[in-house]
Amino acid sequence: MTIATALEALSTFLGDRLSRSKSDLAAHGQSESYFLPTPPDAVAWPETTEDVTEIMRICNEHGCPVTPWGAGTSLEGHALAVRGGLSLDFSRMNALLEIHPEDLDAVVQPGLTREELNRDLRATGLFFPVDPGANASLGGMAATRASGTTTVRYGTMADNVLGLQIVLADGRVIRTGTRARKSASGYDMTRLFVGSEGTLGIITELTLRLHGQPEAISAAICAFDEIGAAVDCVIATIQSGIKVARIEFVDAATAAAVNAYSAGSFAEKPHLLIEFHGSPQTVAEESQRLGELVDDMGGEGFRWSTKPEDRSALWEMRHTAYWAILASRKGARAVVTDLCVPISRLAEAVEETRADIAASPIPGPILGHMGDGNFHAILLIHDDAPDELAAAKALSHRMVERALRMGGTVTGEHGVGMGKLDYMQAEHGDAWALMGDIKQVLDPKGILNPGKLVPQL
Amino acid sequence: MTIATALEALSTFLGDRLSRSKSDLAAHGQSESYFLPTPPDAVAWPETTEDVTEIMRICNEHGCPVTPWGAGTSLEGHALAVRGGLSLDFSRMNALLEIHPEDLDAVVQPGLTREELNRDLRATGLFFPVDPGANASLGGMAATRASGTTTVRYGTMADNVLGLQIVLADGRVIRTGTRARKSASGYDMTRLFVGSEGTLGIITELTLRLHGQPEAISAAICAFDEIGAAVDCVIATIQSGIKVARIEFVDAATAAAVNAYSAGSFAEKPHLLIEFHGSPQTVAEESQRLGELVDDMGGEGFRWSTKPEDRSALWEMRHTAYWAILASRKGARAVVTDLCVPISRLAEAVEETRADIAASPIPGPILGHMGDGNFHAILLIHDDAPDELAAAKALSHRMVERALRMGGTVTGEHGVGMGKLDYMQAEHGDAWALMGDIKQVLDPKGILNPGKLVPQL
Ligand SMILES: Cc1cc2nc3c(=O)[nH]c(=O)nc-3n(C[C@H](O)[C@H](O)[C@H](O)COP(=O)(O)OP(=O)(O)OC[C@H]3O[C@@H](n4cnc5c(N)ncnc54)[C@H](O)[C@@H]3O)c2cc1C
Ligand SMILES: Cc1cc2nc3c(=O)[nH]c(=O)nc-3n(C[C@H](O)[C@H](O)[C@H](O)COP(=O)(O)OP(=O)(O)OC[C@H]3O[C@@H](n4cnc5c(N)ncnc54)[C@H](O)[C@@H]3O)c2cc1C
Repeated sequence: MTIATALEALSTFLGDRLSRSKSDLAAHGQSESYFLPTPPDAVAWPETTEDVTEIMRICNEHGCPVTPWGAGTSLEGHALAVRGGLSLDFSRMNALLEIHPEDLDAVVQPGLTREELNRDLRATGLFFPVDPGANASLGGMAATRASGTTTVRYGTMADNVLGLQIVLADGRVIRTGTRARKSASGYDMTRLFVGSEGTLGIITELTLRLHGQPEAISAAICAFDEIGAAVDCVIATIQSGIKVARIEFVDAATAAAVNAYSAGSFAEKPHLLIEFHGSPQTVAEESQRLGELVDDMGGEGFRWSTKPEDRSALWEMRHTAYWAILASRKGARAVVTDLCVPISRLAEAVEETRADIAASPIPGPILGHMGDGNFHAILLIHDDAPDELAAAKALSHRMVERALRMGGTVTGEHGVGMGKLDYMQAEHGDAWALMGDIKQVLDPKGILNPGKLVPQL
Repeated sequence: MTIATALEALSTFLGDRLSRSKSDLAAHGQSESYFLPTPPDAVAWPETTEDVTEIMRICNEHGCPVTPWGAGTSLEGHALAVRGGLSLDFSRMNALLEIHPEDLDAVVQPGLTREELNRDLRATGLFFPVDPGANASLGGMAATRASGTTTVRYGTMADNVLGLQIVLADGRVIRTGTRARKSASGYDMTRLFVGSEGTLGIITELTLRLHGQPEAISAAICAFDEIGAAVDCVIATIQSGIKVARIEFVDAATAAAVNAYSAGSFAEKPHLLIEFHGSPQTVAEESQRLGELVDDMGGEGFRWSTKPEDRSALWEMRHTAYWAILASRKGARAVVTDLCVPISRLAEAVEETRADIAASPIPGPILGHMGDGNFHAILLIHDDAPDELAAAKALSHRMVERALRMGGTVTGEHGVGMGKLDYMQAEHGDAWALMGDIKQVLDPKGILNPGKLVPQL
């Protein structure tokens, strides 16, 4: 009853759907972050829910850890098999199973990525809004309760998952939720699994809420002299009820990085990037309202456009920002921080963070989904300078403390994984022990993504 | 270690905050429904979280059941102390503790009602949207995951509770959520408690999401010859992305009952009642779009208005509908049914239900929050005719089966309580047992609202 005996049984069952090759292990031992490579003992590629059921039955019997793997883009070491065992790769379970255009929902397998889904939906007039920067898997997005640029309008994964099929630790299969828009039928099991990071059960199917592609879209960009003014403009926008579909912030360092990376010509100042969705009249009206607000608050160069090419250029900037920042310091790796505060404290939180980074030895451009009160510093460190990792961790630590002090949360969207484990007690107090109790009931042997999210036994 | 010894200890601690008077017991043994009177052994009126903590400590020690009581308007016998013990009445914990206008949130005690909250918010330009027909308590609304006429636009209680303070079965106090708009920090404990009907913990404080009072509101009413056409119009509205803030359906029998009850002059036909929230331009634009749709679908008398007095008359109709229906059959009581289906199945679900009621011996007007796929039949029965209760239960049973067959849920908004307990297995399968497991961890002695929601041991 060890990992070794489990892998024997798994190998018999899975055949070439199981691999122990060095390259496969290495590929599943990497993360998009500063965590050291941590290869699992084996990688399995289930192709059906029945495969997952049998895998879990075997692993539960043998006490073998199982860590699901979606697209591997999570930032807190979530998908690393830190206690060894199996990495469960969902890339072969990536079908779009059903679309119900009349009900605005779709049923998908967890390995489907958000970009694939939206490509497949294009002709239907519908889309799925949640967009973490990376081309993540929908299973991974549900597991991390992901959100993104459109959350200010369309919500997070918690708002856009109607139901799940889950394989439990012991191989039992359950369904949560229905295709009805709402329900008061018992505990909200769907929302318990959304954000549980693979520690409570394996997602093998998702029913997702879709939205109509907006009739018209307008986008706008504007620059500010000071970070404070840009943030104040976000706050005023939200508070005055202007219905933005996106309102993103990038600082001067980010604008500079993008210019260098893709020959842009953005003013090297803090910017807001904004989008409206609606009827042609609504987007025109709301864009104008926002334009007036921006003027009042000292923003420059505000102009809005409904032309797709203008819009693409603008969001291209936002979406390459992370890679542009990475490229801005040769040979650097990123420690990506994440916090979310009540909107009234946003200016203060950003200013303090900026000053703190300025006083540190490392660069750290700031950007974020400011409409939600959520932002990130991308701290750039060199591997061969261990004091830089220490500096980054200290900055991240102070950001987290700042978030808690201001009534916010230690992670707005990236999740806990390993990186935020040390802050769970501070944020949740006794409620964290309760999370551990719930984990214990659903996974008594502790085989589901051990080492993450809950108190460690 | 019995209810009796618990009450002794409670009496010492609570003094006149505890009552065993006949009238108090009777008042807390009634429900807004067909359940038989079930008085508790005592009623307590906690005034602080500390009171609740001490009450739970005592009750847990003695194994005494505790059933929270908000406004007692729930419809499935939720708040009845069916295993005896204590009814915990929150009417004295009804303070509005904090308003944060800049963050669009408020912190309240659970006994505050939604109407009181909105009265207190009026001057701030903000409001709390969730509106079950009754003037329910916010604690009760969170506990039942309530929703209402505005859910199609603003969501249910699950979407509008940011955080909770909870007293656990053993008296420990925890907090869930933060004042940040979103978080990926661990299991979604807030959403686990929202909808848990007092079976997992006692809500002693809620942080609620507020919304800006719309700049302009327009309302409209229109009649249809056939139920089917009205329902099809709802479906077309939702599918075409017209942003209604409310879209309510009442059938011909309801219109007739309202006419009789409050001297109205509504055509005795199926009606839709609709509201838009937004800027003056938006509501005008959307009202016009809807008017065209209604015309296309054979609706009559569509006219929209932004005048407050027109709007009040219209919603007065909707809000008196339940009482008007009750009054339409002398001496009758109501069995209120509740189901929710995917919108594509709504017409079918309503038509089948109507035919089923027509073939039964009892009247049962139909009305509902059709934009969510959620509707009710108000089945009117006479207490002295036991076959009528049987007929009502049989109709409700078939509605529930219909909902499940169509991929829906056995309760869209009223919750499980006792009335829907028998359908939980059918809807949730093995996930229901899991709910029981979670209950067991949080309330090992089973003292929190026993007899409800989870599998009964
Ligand atoms: C450039 C960049 C930008 C980003 N921007 C954002 C952003 O804006 N917002 C945001 O929220 N995140 C962002 N992220 C983080 C990341 O994209 C999200 O966390 C995403 O949801 C992870 O999805 P994934 O498929 O890559 O999951 P993985 O990294 O593979 O796994 C994440 C977690 O989910 C679990 N998991 C995966 N599949 C399943 C399954 N089927 N069942 C159960 N558990 C499963 C894993 O075990 C792991 O714990 C960004 C990342 C990068 C690199
Ligand atoms: C005419 C009419 C129309 C209605 N329309 C709707 C509607 O449109 N939508 C809808 O959702 N409902 C509707 N309802 C049902 C009812 O109003 C809701 O269920 C409401 O949320 C109940 O709130 P309450 O304060 O009355 O709770 P109660 O009935 O007092 O209690 C409900 C449940 O919550 C628990 N509870 C109460 N307070 C707490 C607390 N502080 N902590 C933990 N648990 C607690 C109780 O133990 C019980 O299980 C309607 C009822 C009537 C009579």
